[in-house]
Amino acid sequence: MRTIKQEIRILGFDDGPFIPRSKAKVPVIGVVFRGGNFLDGIIKTEVTVDGLDATRILTRVINESKHKEQLRVIMLNGITIGGFNLIDIQDMHEKTTLPVIVVNRKMPNKKKIKIALKNFDDFEKRWEYIKKAGRIYRMSIEKNKNIYFQFIGLKLEEVKKIIKLSCTRSLIPEPLRVAHLIASALVKGESGGRA
Amino acid sequence: MRTIKQEIRILGFDDGPFIPRSKAKVPVIGVVFRGGNFLDGIIKTEVTVDGLDATRILTRVINESKHKEQLRVIMLNGITIGGFNLIDIQDMHEKTTLPVIVVNRKMPNKKKIKIALKNFDDFEKRWEYIKKAGRIYRMSIEKNKNIYFQFIGLKLEEVKKIIKLSCTRSLIPEPLRVAHLIASALVKGESGGRA
Repeated sequence: MRTIKQEIRILGFDDGPFIPRSKAKVPVIGVVFRGGNFLDGIIKTEVTVDGLDATRILTRVINESKHKEQLRVIMLNGITIGGFNLIDIQDMHEKTTLPVIVVNRKMPNKKKIKIALKNFDDFEKRWEYIKKAGRIYRMSIEKNKNIYFQFIGLKLEEVKKIIKLSCTRSLIPEPLRVAHLIASALVKGESGGRA
Repeated sequence: MRTIKQEIRILGFDDGPFIPRSKAKVPVIGVVFRGGNFLDGIIKTEVTVDGLDATRILTRVINESKHKEQLRVIMLNGITIGGFNLIDIQDMHEKTTLPVIVVNRKMPNKKKIKIALKNFDDFEKRWEYIKKAGRIYRMSIEKNKNIYFQFIGLKLEEVKKIIKLSCTRSLIPEPLRVAHLIASALVKGESGGRA
């Protein structure tokens, strides 16, 4: 097994708030962290609400990033971004040659997701992306506090180490927590605090 | 002297890149940090390149922020933002009731600034803001590495403590370093790394 360095470069993506079913563009922020401590850089892009362009767009900004060479892993906050814009993590892994870790605060409710996805003409394709994300694992960060994750391109023990070392400040890995704070402020003008 | 807590809430502002003399709007990002470690929230606003609206706009977003109650100090990266948009730190201090610390990586060259400001019809007013920022102090962060600062609303020793505890990752206080990374990414699509 490769050694997971404390300063491993992680790129975590999250979106800002948006109007559901608007088909509008929603800002997506990528945050490069060294481990869970040092914020190294920011990427800004956008995807279409309920579109299916997230895999292509995120893969492109990762591959074009000047951080690319240092990056060791991509993190996503769930496999949807901008509503039901699903991410094909197998495709992202192949085209970036980087491992992908998908983090969920709650156990995803596949039954509910399936019902929502049935509203889309391309249901089959979207459901395929969900299956391609693979098995959902659970780990505890603190006592009685679990997070759920999927991954590709790493061993289970490596994934657990990376999640643990990046959850320095909360139950969410720092790159994802900070990406969400930034993307939210872009849309709402302010984020964090007693929001 | 008040005790400076390790987790003191600092709000640091910086701008993104802009076209000089464009009179355009430039994004300004405020980052709330607990000390030099935990990023607590983000504020986004904008000011006019070479305008004189920065004091009013930043004072307003500070006073309207849901972080306001927790904030203990404002940090600025120099007293200009968006070109020669000068900040009246005395006015900002009075209207927010918060201390203000201005950090400069280099000793500001007042002679050069004066020549540049002479191009403005309201030179007298802008020069007054510079005088109101007060004496420039120096401190060393690492061996042979100095930073320069001005302040209002605190004692000198308090200011030094706050700068030291916020420079956790570099020679720039974390709120200012991260504000710059975010504001740059908004304009250029990406920041940090080998930029």
